[in-house]
Amino acid sequence: MVNNVLIAVIGAGGVGKCFLGQLATLAARRPSPKLDLCYICSSKKAVFSADYAGIDINSATETLAASPVAPKSLTALADYLAAAPSKVVLVDNTSSQDVADSYPLFLGKGVSIVTPNKKAFSGSYDLWKAIFSASEASGAKVYHESSVGAGLPVISTLKDLVDTGDKVTKIEGVFSGTMSFLFNSFAPTEGKGGQWSAEVKNAKALGYTEPDPRDDLNGLDVARKLTILARLAGLPVASPTAFPVQSLIPTELESCTSGDEFLEKLPAFDSQMEATKSEAEAEGKVVRFVGSIDVATQSVKVGLEKFDRSHPIAALKGSDNIISFYTERYGSNPLIIQGAGAGGEVTAMGVTADLIKVISQL
Amino acid sequence: MVNNVLIAVIGAGGVGKCFLGQLATLAARRPSPKLDLCYICSSKKAVFSADYAGIDINSATETLAASPVAPKSLTALADYLAAAPSKVVLVDNTSSQDVADSYPLFLGKGVSIVTPNKKAFSGSYDLWKAIFSASEASGAKVYHESSVGAGLPVISTLKDLVDTGDKVTKIEGVFSGTMSFLFNSFAPTEGKGGQWSAEVKNAKALGYTEPDPRDDLNGLDVARKLTILARLAGLPVASPTAFPVQSLIPTELESCTSGDEFLEKLPAFDSQMEATKSEAEAEGKVVRFVGSIDVATQSVKVGLEKFDRSHPIAALKGSDNIISFYTERYGSNPLIIQGAGAGGEVTAMGVTADLIKVISQL
Repeated sequence: MVNNVLIAVIGAGGVGKCFLGQLATLAARRPSPKLDLCYICSSKKAVFSADYAGIDINSATETLAASPVAPKSLTALADYLAAAPSKVVLVDNTSSQDVADSYPLFLGKGVSIVTPNKKAFSGSYDLWKAIFSASEASGAKVYHESSVGAGLPVISTLKDLVDTGDKVTKIEGVFSGTMSFLFNSFAPTEGKGGQWSAEVKNAKALGYTEPDPRDDLNGLDVARKLTILARLAGLPVASPTAFPVQSLIPTELESCTSGDEFLEKLPAFDSQMEATKSEAEAEGKVVRFVGSIDVATQSVKVGLEKFDRSHPIAALKGSDNIISFYTERYGSNPLIIQGAGAGGEVTAMGVTADLIKVISQL
Repeated sequence: MVNNVLIAVIGAGGVGKCFLGQLATLAARRPSPKLDLCYICSSKKAVFSADYAGIDINSATETLAASPVAPKSLTALADYLAAAPSKVVLVDNTSSQDVADSYPLFLGKGVSIVTPNKKAFSGSYDLWKAIFSASEASGAKVYHESSVGAGLPVISTLKDLVDTGDKVTKIEGVFSGTMSFLFNSFAPTEGKGGQWSAEVKNAKALGYTEPDPRDDLNGLDVARKLTILARLAGLPVASPTAFPVQSLIPTELESCTSGDEFLEKLPAFDSQMEATKSEAEAEGKVVRFVGSIDVATQSVKVGLEKFDRSHPIAALKGSDNIISFYTERYGSNPLIIQGAGAGGEVTAMGVTADLIKVISQL
């Protein structure tokens, strides 16, 4: 094992701050290899030193806030890290497509990558191939557990199934903490639940949605996660728009120019979701927003489905995710992973756990 | 990464045969590093060559059956592997205490270990410490995912939680495929279920129990798994008999000299289990055999408990395990892993996945 590893961090927002806290604990606990933070940036600022001297991890957030230095361009950052005297892991805590697009560049220069950023693995299939080709060619690692289900062991479990020769036949579940919270409130297994538009407003007020709730309701977040899992299961899905994705944004509101305008006009369309809920209730069921991958028929889809009240997907609580893997070895009873699939600390946990695994291979 | 890795296998029974099948697929798929089987033995026979030339993995079972050679002693095997020209991973597919006791010897000589054998990690706390001290001193790895819940990602998830600084507060669940099958049949959430003794006989006939069902009913198997998880969560549990374990063997039948005698006499004691079942039913509940670890109070216990019919533990199917991790980060909703926790292929899957992880670090 190497003596020290340099860590470069892009993104110091919600997940980034939690990650830095976990990194500080990790660095203090593990004397070998020594973990040195050599670069950290937000969208506006950066901290680094020309000679890769470690930045104090405990005060990194404050040092960054006070820094007068602008972030390096991605190509300049790649050159800086490639010239480092030790092995380097780049931790991308953003959801930026630009950073994702540069992964092949970093990997090609021997810089390993750990990230919760979905964009790299759910964008074009060409980018997916470029990332894993660059990793294979240079030996640099790329880990992204938190790109699906935050810190839940989803990606690692699917990889273990595939790598040990099991055949995954179907994957299904609730992949969005936001959608889970919304439907557990709107159509609970016990009680009536609220009006759809009121539940959306409430979820936003509680911080369960993106700043613009349409970014959750359009289904793209779930479609991105399904794209990642389908590709790991062996399906060459072209993009997250290459399969049926049901949007919960009423057609008439697609042209709203802001999230606020959307929320204001949404109550007029409550009858649509109410009808869906009643239809399920008439069958003794509840409606949920789910994704599924059928490997044999190469069918991937995202949208509303009805479930018996006793079904594990119906019985979810809070903003929990649930992911069921059906495989040849596991037979009729799937391997199931369930728990919080969003939140700064649990997302950062997946990143930190990945970092530990990458370091052990350097 | 190294050019080739030598694999030595002890045990060619149910799990061992499945593992060899998975190893053959793995070796064929992954050109680098080359995986060479240098030693394989059952309790009676062995195959190896003095110059560590690879044994053909595809025909290893047949070659072993036809071999006139006796197995090496564990000390001779350790010397043989320590003298190997490449890195070595020892795969222990037995449940032997003798093999488990020799792990510090192998690890001390730089031989990594991958195993589903519970004995090493649930025996004396001194053995536990000796194993991990030897691993830390030499850098050799020791992985044992399949020692709890077969191929389910239980050990790896608990390690990730602890290593990233989360605080595990409670672990609970159904840890025995045999007990799961027995209670799902004896006290189903719907319908009446059968007589206790008849369900035990049926489970044995279907291969769900050990050859002597008392080895499941005494609770020791579950106690061993709880010991492993408690230690990983930071509790220095002295042994699997250091905490309360409820045995389902009636006191009067503890002196039976054979499993057959036990099964013959068991029906006379059905009223005890029937009373437990009725008591739960009167509360609208079902009885299940569970284990739990409360980290704060350092309390570990194994035995019968009552659960609401809608509780995930009550709703298990077949011989599935369920393990719930309550942690500070995950809050009131635990991280849950569920699925088959026994069977040759899924147990071997945990072993093979561990092997892949160890190889990536050599």
